Amino acid sequence: MVGELRPGEMVLAGIAEPDGPRLHFIGSIRSPWGPEDCPKNIGRAREAGMGARVELDPAFAPALAGLTVGQPVILLYWMDRARRDLLVQAPRHVEAPRGTFALRSPNRPNTISQATVRITTLDPVQGVIGIDAIDCFDGTPLVDIKPWLETVDMPPDSAAD
Amino acid sequence: MVGELRPGEMVLAGIAEPDGPRLHFIGSIRSPWGPEDCPKNIGRAREAGMGARVELDPAFAPALAGLTVGQPVILLYWMDRARRDLLVQAPRHVEAPRGTFALRSPNRPNTISQATVRITTLDPVQGVIGIDAIDCFDGTPLVDIKPWLETVDMPPDSAAD
Repeated sequence: MVGELRPGEMVLAGIAEPDGPRLHFIGSIRSPWGPEDCPKNIGRAREAGMGARVELDPAFAPALAGLTVGQPVILLYWMDRARRDLLVQAPRHVEAPRGTFALRSPNRPNTISQATVRITTLDPVQGVIGIDAIDCFDGTPLVDIKPWLETVDMPPDSAAD
Repeated sequence: MVGELRPGEMVLAGIAEPDGPRLHFIGSIRSPWGPEDCPKNIGRAREAGMGARVELDPAFAPALAGLTVGQPVILLYWMDRARRDLLVQAPRHVEAPRGTFALRSPNRPNTISQATVRITTLDPVQGVIGIDAIDCFDGTPLVDIKPWLETVDMPPDSAAD
């Protein structure tokens, strides 16, 4: 895949095979999007006005108890087509190459993306959650659902960054 | 471990061994905290007024390019002592048992916790980042660093939830 690098990009040479714990996918995200038309970020996905949904493995449905329609939640999902070896990247929308940890690109050592979305519908028996929007392909594996909490998820001191 | 359950808690019976992709730990979090004194959440960690730092595997240091002191970032880290099989939990601070996905408990199918912190110092050569505070044990494995972005990380429509 090195041949596909853009000018200024840098890969981690001789990266070891990942040897950390294995993820357990808890379900998948059903979205209107594929590789041809997926919005570049959650803002554009919202502008498109298309909802999406989370389909949990039914075994996990009891773990939804306590969530409510209207609540914001953070979804973590696995970008299974992204690269894990890029240290410096040159996305088309930035003026100069930048380090992976300064970008929200799906290409990163652990290809987990996250979005803060709002619950629009909730079926705790089937384990299906409607959400306002999402910026990933249909079928993306889901890693976690967390309640968004102002006390935890806002930057300290000031949000004006 | 079933014997340690509190009233109302529920485990996922017959959970399969996780068979998803393996994580690649990119470094570790150095904090003042151990099992005896770790704050229960990031708010209490901030009140304690103790900074912390991220020590990247030096191979990943180039991926910090573009981050700046003062910037808020999201850290994802692996809670390696937590349980992966709890569907419903009864933390001491909540009045009734609640589903795992309605809680920020470290116990979850993928034991990834996250905090939004502010960068206080940055050594991009050594791959060391000072942060304002953190609520995990010293030595916790690090999974990801992402820039916090208002357009991505604030709930849609309203933050007044």
